Formats: sequence, structure tokens, C-alpha cells
Amino acid sequence: MAVPEDLGLFTDLYELTMAQAYFQHGMFAPATFSLFVRRLPPNRGYMVAAGLEDVLRFLEGLRFTSGDIDYLHGTGLFAGDFLDYLSKLRFTGDVWAIPEGRLFFANEPLVEVTAPVIEAQLVETFIINQVNLQSLIATKAARTVWAAKGRSVVEFGLRRTHGMDAGMKAARVAYMVGCDATSNVLAGRRYGIPISGTMAHSFVTSFDREIDSFRAFARSFPKNTVLLIDTYDTVEGARKAVTVAREMEALGHRLAGVRIDSGDLKALAFEVRWVLDEAGLPYVRILASGGLDEYQVAEVVEAGSPCDAFGVGTQMGVSGDAPSTDMAYKLVKYGGRPVLKLSTGKATLPDEKQVLRYREGRKLHHDVIALRQEAQDDGRAEDLLDRVMHDGRIQGRLPSLAEMRDRFREEFACLDEGCKRLAGPDTYPVELSRPLRDLAARIQQQLSSEEQGTG
Amino acid sequence: MAVPEDLGLFTDLYELTMAQAYFQHGMFAPATFSLFVRRLPPNRGYMVAAGLEDVLRFLEGLRFTSGDIDYLHGTGLFAGDFLDYLSKLRFTGDVWAIPEGRLFFANEPLVEVTAPVIEAQLVETFIINQVNLQSLIATKAARTVWAAKGRSVVEFGLRRTHGMDAGMKAARVAYMVGCDATSNVLAGRRYGIPISGTMAHSFVTSFDREIDSFRAFARSFPKNTVLLIDTYDTVEGARKAVTVAREMEALGHRLAGVRIDSGDLKALAFEVRWVLDEAGLPYVRILASGGLDEYQVAEVVEAGSPCDAFGVGTQMGVSGDAPSTDMAYKLVKYGGRPVLKLSTGKATLPDEKQVLRYREGRKLHHDVIALRQEAQDDGRAEDLLDRVMHDGRIQGRLPSLAEMRDRFREEFACLDEGCKRLAGPDTYPVELSRPLRDLAARIQQQLSSEEQGTG
Repeated sequence: MAVPEDLGLFTDLYELTMAQAYFQHGMFAPATFSLFVRRLPPNRGYMVAAGLEDVLRFLEGLRFTSGDIDYLHGTGLFAGDFLDYLSKLRFTGDVWAIPEGRLFFANEPLVEVTAPVIEAQLVETFIINQVNLQSLIATKAARTVWAAKGRSVVEFGLRRTHGMDAGMKAARVAYMVGCDATSNVLAGRRYGIPISGTMAHSFVTSFDREIDSFRAFARSFPKNTVLLIDTYDTVEGARKAVTVAREMEALGHRLAGVRIDSGDLKALAFEVRWVLDEAGLPYVRILASGGLDEYQVAEVVEAGSPCDAFGVGTQMGVSGDAPSTDMAYKLVKYGGRPVLKLSTGKATLPDEKQVLRYREGRKLHHDVIALRQEAQDDGRAEDLLDRVMHDGRIQGRLPSLAEMRDRFREEFACLDEGCKRLAGPDTYPVELSRPLRDLAARIQQQLSSEEQGTG
Repeated sequence: MAVPEDLGLFTDLYELTMAQAYFQHGMFAPATFSLFVRRLPPNRGYMVAAGLEDVLRFLEGLRFTSGDIDYLHGTGLFAGDFLDYLSKLRFTGDVWAIPEGRLFFANEPLVEVTAPVIEAQLVETFIINQVNLQSLIATKAARTVWAAKGRSVVEFGLRRTHGMDAGMKAARVAYMVGCDATSNVLAGRRYGIPISGTMAHSFVTSFDREIDSFRAFARSFPKNTVLLIDTYDTVEGARKAVTVAREMEALGHRLAGVRIDSGDLKALAFEVRWVLDEAGLPYVRILASGGLDEYQVAEVVEAGSPCDAFGVGTQMGVSGDAPSTDMAYKLVKYGGRPVLKLSTGKATLPDEKQVLRYREGRKLHHDVIALRQEAQDDGRAEDLLDRVMHDGRIQGRLPSLAEMRDRFREEFACLDEGCKRLAGPDTYPVELSRPLRDLAARIQQQLSSEEQGTG
């Protein structure tokens, strides 16, 4: 979905209760929040940044309607002067962010928002909701495309993504990281992604005989027919596909492919290829689908199985082996004062930051998380975070999906293959700059003495 | 999200290519499709039906805009007469379904759609997308509420659900199965669900001293303050909460609770309870949160830990241990002829069906999946599927969320506890009626001889 108009209330209640407390205590100083993952999900050696465009459009459009205000009034929690303030609120802050399609790693700030504390706080829920989802699925899809080693991957997840919004975003980010097409027609229209798909089992079973269904489809789509051959018996289905392919040849057409959606794909693909080749149909492609994920795609590819393309749905669309991250949006600066929290296992890095990416030749070599103010272009490293919003307005032109796709392809090609392994990947080196480490240590020491009674 | 207007293209491309092939071959006979899961997800002894209301509203509103038609024309796949037909298409069929909030088991038809084959086929993607998501999260939330054994559970998942739509639906179905409130303000407004939430770590860290943040919040919300006490040191935080609670008492107010969001919840809750009780504050409740799922809630409850309520977010919102099902929508009848497919591991049950639920006393005893035509009210069993749509119009009044919640509570109380176990649950007995088994066997035999060349 595009971002709907009326999303002021798309937030956790505590964002609004905190906002009222800030309001009533005259706390309007600028705050900076930082979005990051503490740990990469299991078996991930990298993640792919995604979701920023939706965040920026949300921030530009943020407002509370009179209906929203009436609802909040009815809860009995909020004071009239605060609700007046809320009814006029717009987002007026700055956003720094890693562009969509770039790689990021644990603890690196993906998005940093600086705005009067109420504004910066209120937008937490939406920002995490979108960047978490889109980065998670982009990462899963990147793994799948990598596992396919140049064979085509098509995104088929719409029916089992978690709802409508996820279905749209999954198609978007899967294309961004190299899938060739999506089955999602609305995503095709909205995002300009190539669309793909031909027939389901129901089409086959709606005819008295399997071969009749094949013939009917071939007549309707002489240039785009992929026959689904596993409804009753896959190898028999392949033989019927041969019959239909020859009938198509007689009319000057070519059968584009066959699809196998169940059974032992590795073995069946060899058998089906043999049937097709024996019949002199080397051009008919084999598309494999049915509950695939990147691990199974890798197995099929490594076995040398003659699948030309993979339709990958559910597991990619929900990031099945890692459906969540620990992505968090934390206050790092308030009123000019860098802050952090010490919560067990959830400590944070203070202050506004930048990420410097160093290469050796073209290869990515290591990253340094630094204070934004210390980060200087020394010509050796690239700054990952750009200022993408200023005073509540998007800066410059947003990149197209095609540009993000190119950016991803270039950078991913330069990441060490060990970091791309599907299981037990190498850890990409990420360091903290000395000024950042010193600042964190100083604040921690001060907090320990003040708040824990241990000083 | 409510169902947006323009969802005709929210579908997989193959639904539209099949539709054109049906159109061009004059296939407009009624078809029945059946929605079901083949296997319950791991560790599930039951699932909870959900998502029907969105499906029915989608079906009533289904149409293709002129913009949709233009887009489809531009793909080069579709013929003009078919696109004309599509531009006028409305859903005119019947829907039978298990009401939301009821329990269902493997292979039981949740929704059966009968309509001219093009209409019945086109709506597949949306139906699976919504019923799969909502049933999955409803089931996960039911497990969590069950694990809490009467302690309160509040839904906190919005930031890490998969997108906006999932965030709304998660709040909806979590409330349906017994969660007491949601943090999602928009869901509060849209669905009338109680909303809950007070402060985040950022509120604490935006003040120079933790206790200042507690005091500020208590002044703004003298009746609704839950203090987050783990930002620096949980037990020290509890002592500061005591100070503030006494200050509140002096003004005639009471601190509602404290929240612990990290660390060893079991141990910390005992320590915090001790601090509060020692201070004469037995009424201050302890809310636990931070990456909880039903397994951890059960552990905390079984340890007798004095947590009064649980805030459960990510894991419930994405059904972390089982983020997908194998839910499928399969053709079971076309033009009066019952059909099935034989695909390895994916065989289907033919024809229109009904599910009969037998009780022994109040306890659920077993279900029988039967042909709809054979199912007769014999006074001993209850028919689970109602006709909820006729000729494309919703039949009767849709139940309210409160009614679904009551229905779930009643039926779930009658399910054997062994089926509710979080791991290794008992299997609830589901039988196939003899006429259904006979029909399936007859069609299978016929297909084997015709399509597999083995007859």
C-alpha cells in the first residue's frame, strides 16, 4: 500500500502519553533517535537497508485528523491543550539514513531522526514497522537470489505474506535485490516490476483431462505458456507437455516452460529435462516452485539439477527462518546531551553517528561507526548516512527502484563471499571509533555512579 | 487497514491469465474452491479461525478500475474482449465459512467459495492472504493467553509486525482470543479495543536523572502511571518507584505499576515485588515485557513469579515459531463435477463440504468432515460452516469483535487441555465421513487410470 492519509494514530499509545508528559513539562528540545539492529538474525552475515521511502513519505504527511483528536479525547487520558497542540503538529525534523539497497551490519545506525522530542518520539512505531519489515525481506530475498547462482528467481509470496502491506513491500524489495519478477499484479502496476505467472492446479482440474487444460492455455497464450505438470503425475505431465509443445510448433509457437510444484524437485527436474530433450525441446525451460527457500534452492543448484528458474513464495515472503529482528529506535541525544541506556543486553551507543565504509580495491574491507561530528571525508572511506530530510522536507530526488537495484548489485558483488554463506557466515568487521568509545565509557561511568548507587 | 477501494489487482498474475483462458474457452460454469490447512503448524493442537470479515468486504467491493484495465492492457497479455468483461466483473457467488473465533483443525474447510469459475479463482490470493495471517496470529495469541493462566496479556507488536496491515490485524485477533488491550492506537480507534501503554526508555533517558522522569510522568498521569524501571538498574529503579509512589500517595494518588523489560524476569520480579511489598505498596502491579513469547510466559507463570501482566509484542505479532501455514485454496468442484489433485503430499478432498462438531457434555469430542449434501442436522452435532454470503451479498449482520471474543472463550474452554499444550499437543480427532471417503477414492482411481497411465 502507499502510505494512507490517516496514519497519525498508527503508533503505540506510549508515544502519545510520553508526548503529553513532554508537553506538560515544557520539553521541546531537539532529540536524536537512532535506528539499528543489535544483532543480525541467525545465519545472516549482512542485511540490506530498505523501507526508507515509505518512512520519508509518512513523515512528510504526518498529522492528526479531527476524528483522531476526538478519539484521543474520548480516552480520558489527554488534556485539551495537549490535544490542541497535537492537532497542529507536523514533522519538522531532519533525517539521516543509509540509502535503500545498501548493506548494513549490527549496531550500525540505519536511520537517525533529529527533531523536537515529541515529533521524533511519535514516529518511532511507523519507522520500525516499515524498515524492519522491508530490510528483513530484502535480506531474505538477497540470500535466495545469491543461492540461485544466476538462475532466475521470481517472487510468489503474496498469498502468504503477513497481510496486504507486507505483500506489496515484499514484491518491492525482492525486485530491489535481484529477483526478476513478481506474481503480484498490483506491485507490478505500482512499482513497475515485471510480473510473472501462468496457471494453477485448479486450472488443470477444472478440465476433464489434463491435456485439455494444457491445450486450452496454449491457445490463449501462445507466447507465454508455462504448463504446470505435477497435478497428477509429473513425468506423465511432462509427456503431455511434449505433445502440446509439438502442436504449438506446428502453429509456429514455442512452449515457454513447464513448472514442477511438488515432490523431489532435484530428481524430477532431471527426469523432466530428459523427457523434453528426448523430444527435441531443449528450449522449454523448467521452473521449480513449492515451499522453496534459499537453503533448498542452494541444494538444487549444487546438485546440478536442470531447473532454469525458481518461484519462491512463502518462505521468502515471511523470512521464514528469521521472521523478526531486534531492530530498535533509541534516544541517543537530548537537548545537546548525548545519552544511552544500560538495560541488560540492550545497552546503546550515544550521540549522532555516521558509518564509514572502507574498501580495499573494490572489495568491502571494514566499517567504522563514528560520531557524526568527528566523521570527516578523508578520501579513504565513504559516509553511509546521507541527510535525506531537512526541516521536514525530503531532500533531493528519491532514487528509483531500478537505481536501488543497481546500487545493491554493485555493492553486494564487493562483499566477501564468506559473509554471504547461508549458514555460519563470516562476521564482517565493524569497529567503533575511539571518540565514540570514549564518549560511551564516560557516560556509562557517570550513570553507574548516579543511577546504580555503585559510584 | 480497512480494505482499500482499489484491490482488483491485489492478486497473482496467474489468476488473471487463467481467467482469460476460461473466458476464451467459454468456461463460466460454477466452481467451488475450498480453503484449508493440510497440517497444523509445529506444536499447534488447534487453530483459531479469523479474517472472514475482511474477505467478505473484499468480495462485496471487488472491481477493476479503468486504471487497472489500462495497466493490464499495457502488459500485452490480455485481449480486448476479456478486459471489457473484467471491467464489468463483480463477485456474484456464495460463501460458506467457519465463523471467526471458532477452532479448526487440519483439512477442515474454513471457507468454501462457489461462483462462476473466473470469479471464484480471481479471489484466491486475497482470501489466503487475510485468513492465513489472521488465523495464524489469532492462534499464537490464544496460546499466549492460555500460557498466562489468567494473568493479563497486552498486545505490543505493532512495531515489528510485518507492515501496517499485519499490525492492525494482529491487534484485532489478539483481542478476539482474550488479550486485554493493545498498544496500537489506530486499532483502538478502528476496532474499539482498549489501548494500553505508558513510557519507553527514551523518556527516562531524556531526563538528567531517572527519578525526575518518574516524577514528571506521575504528574502528567496521576491515575495511569506504569514506571519503566530497567533503564539503568532494575532493583534501583524499583526503589525510585517506591519514592515516587509515596509522593503520589501524599497527593491522594496511586502508582498503577512498574514494568521490567530486560534481564532475568523471573528473578527480577521476585526482587521487585519484595521491594514494593516492604515499602507497603502491595497494590503496585508488575508488568513484564521484552521479547516474550508463550513459552517464556509459561515459564514465568510456572515459576510462581509475581508478574501480574505481560506485554507481548514481536513474537506474537509475527507468530515467531511458526510464521506461516500451508493454507491452500483448492478447486473441489467444477460444473457439477467433484475434482481433486494428486500432487505428492498435496492431495485434496473433493466436493463441497461441511464440518460436524460433536460434543460429549460440553467438551468437544470429535469432528467429522462430510459432504455438504449429506450433512444433516441430526441434533447431535453442530454444523461449523454457515452460508455467510449469497449472490455476492453478505448474509445477515456480521458479528462484533466482542461477540467473536465470547464465542472463542466459550469454545476454547471446552477443548481438551491436552490439545492446548504448547509443545507436543494431543491431536484432536477429525474423521472423514464414509461418503466423502468413497467419493475421493472413486475419483482417485479414475484419475490414476486416465492421467497416470497405470489403470
